[in-house]
Amino acid sequence: MRLGSIEAGGTKFILAITDEHYRILKRQRVATTKPNETLEACVSFFKKNPVDALGIGSFGPADIKVDSPTYGQILNTPKAGWSHTDVVQMLRAALKIPITFTTDVNASAYGEYMIGQGQAVRSLVYFTIGTGIGGVIQDNHFIGGMSHLEMGHTMVIPISGDNFKGVCPYHQNRCFEGMASGPAIEARTGKPGEQLKRTNEVFKLISYYIAQLVFDAYLNFMPERIVIGGSVVSETELPVIRRDVEQLNNNYVELPNLDHLIVLTGIANNGSATIGNVALAKNLIF
Amino acid sequence: MRLGSIEAGGTKFILAITDEHYRILKRQRVATTKPNETLEACVSFFKKNPVDALGIGSFGPADIKVDSPTYGQILNTPKAGWSHTDVVQMLRAALKIPITFTTDVNASAYGEYMIGQGQAVRSLVYFTIGTGIGGVIQDNHFIGGMSHLEMGHTMVIPISGDNFKGVCPYHQNRCFEGMASGPAIEARTGKPGEQLKRTNEVFKLISYYIAQLVFDAYLNFMPERIVIGGSVVSETELPVIRRDVEQLNNNYVELPNLDHLIVLTGIANNGSATIGNVALAKNLIF
Repeated sequence: MRLGSIEAGGTKFILAITDEHYRILKRQRVATTKPNETLEACVSFFKKNPVDALGIGSFGPADIKVDSPTYGQILNTPKAGWSHTDVVQMLRAALKIPITFTTDVNASAYGEYMIGQGQAVRSLVYFTIGTGIGGVIQDNHFIGGMSHLEMGHTMVIPISGDNFKGVCPYHQNRCFEGMASGPAIEARTGKPGEQLKRTNEVFKLISYYIAQLVFDAYLNFMPERIVIGGSVVSETELPVIRRDVEQLNNNYVELPNLDHLIVLTGIANNGSATIGNVALAKNLIF
Repeated sequence: MRLGSIEAGGTKFILAITDEHYRILKRQRVATTKPNETLEACVSFFKKNPVDALGIGSFGPADIKVDSPTYGQILNTPKAGWSHTDVVQMLRAALKIPITFTTDVNASAYGEYMIGQGQAVRSLVYFTIGTGIGGVIQDNHFIGGMSHLEMGHTMVIPISGDNFKGVCPYHQNRCFEGMASGPAIEARTGKPGEQLKRTNEVFKLISYYIAQLVFDAYLNFMPERIVIGGSVVSETELPVIRRDVEQLNNNYVELPNLDHLIVLTGIANNGSATIGNVALAKNLIF
C-alpha cells in the first residue's frame, strides 16, 4: 500500500509518499504559485508515484466540512488567485483516488495522535504556537467534527504590567493571537520569534500566555496530552510554561505529571502534518 | 423495559422510573441523610419498582472514571459521612442490575442531548450556571471521556470597572466561578440569585461573564448547541448574553443564529438529569 500527503502551505506544498506504516518513501517540495500550476505539479508527482489514498492538510481558510457544498475548497484568502480553488475536486478528477481534506493544524494534530506524542493516549490537544490555532482529538475523532476550532481567539488575561495593545484586529489584547502569536511577538520585538535569542524577556511573557491557553485547554478537554508545535516554543520555554500552568491552577485540580502532559512534537522535522495526512487517508481505505 | 434514575444531590436524592421512551412513570424524593440510610431508601424504592438498568448522576466530587479503582465512589466531600461512600458497589450488590455513574451535570447534559435541546444536533455544550460547571457531548460521547470537565474555572477577563475580588479560593477574580457563580452573586448582592429582581444590575455583569464562557466554549468545541441550565439565568438574560457574545466575537468567526445556538434547557422541571440518567442506563442494555 502507498499513501500520499500534501501539506498545502501558503509558500510551499510538501508532497510525500509513505508505506502503510507511515514510513516516508519520497518527499518533494513544490512552490505555491498559481493554483493550476501548483496543483498540476501535485498531479504529476502522484502520477509518477501512485498512491492508494491521499490526505491533504491545507492552509486556510478552507472548507473542511465533508457535507458542505464547498467542501474541499480554499475559501476567501488574501493569497492571490487561490480563493475558491477546488483543491479536492481537481485532484480527485485527475488522480481518481480517495482523498481526505483538512487543515494543516488538524493534520499535525492527527499525526501526533497517531505516532508522535499521542501513542497510548486517548485524547490529545495540539497547538501550533505562532498562531495559537489548535486541534483536539479524542478517541480517534476530531472535536468540533471536521470543522476547525478557533482556540487561538479564546480569551487570555493580560499580565499586570504588560501594556501591549495586541495585534488581533478583532479582539485586540483579549485573545491569545492578539498577545502571543507570531505577529504579536514580531510587533513586540521587531523580529520574528525564530530570530530572537532564547534569553529575550519576551519569551517569559509568551510562555505565560501559552500557559493560559494550555491550562484552559486542560480544564475544557481533560486531555491526556497537550502537544506544542511550531517554531516559537523550544525546550527552553517548556519548564517555564509548566511552572506557569501550575501557578494558574494554584492547586485547584489535581494535575497529572506536567512533564508528560505538556510536550513538544514527537515527530521530527515538522513531519507531523505529513503523518497525519497519510493516516487520515489510510482511514478511507480500511 | 423499565429504566431507573437517581439524581444524587447534597440535600436530596430524586429517584425516578421511566419506560424505554423516557416517559416518567414514578418519582420519589429522598432526603440526603447518612449514606446507609439514603442508599437503603434507594434500594427499597427500586426493589418495589424494579428496573432493567439504573443511571446515577451524583453530586461531587465523585469518581466517574470506569477504569479507576475507586470508580463509583463519592470522593472527599465536606458532606458529613459521605466521603468514600461506594455508591455503585452498594447499589449493584443489592439490585444486581447494570448501573451507570456520572456527575449530575453530565447527566443533565446527556438528557438535553438526547431529548431536550439537543434533538437533531451532533454536539452540545451544557452549563449549569450557578457553578459554571459544564459537560460537552459530541456524537454521543462525552468530551474528556467519562471524567468531568472544569470549565467553571476557565479564565474570564474582569469587566473594566468591576472591582469585585472574586470568590474562587484558587483563582480569585480570574475564573468564571470566582466572578459569576451562585456564591459570587450572593457575595456581590447579599442574596442568592433566585431572590433577586431580574432588573438588578448584577445580572448585566453576570450575563457578560456567561457570554465569555459561552463564546470560549464556542471557539473550543464548535458545538451546534449551548444549553444554559440552573436557576440563575432566565429568558430575560438570554438576549443580553447573545448580544454580549456577538460583541466579544466582534465579527471574527461566522456565528450561527444565536437564538438557536444559545438556549435554556428544553426539559421542564429540572428534569434533564433524570432523562440523562435513564438514557445512559439504557445504553448499557442495548
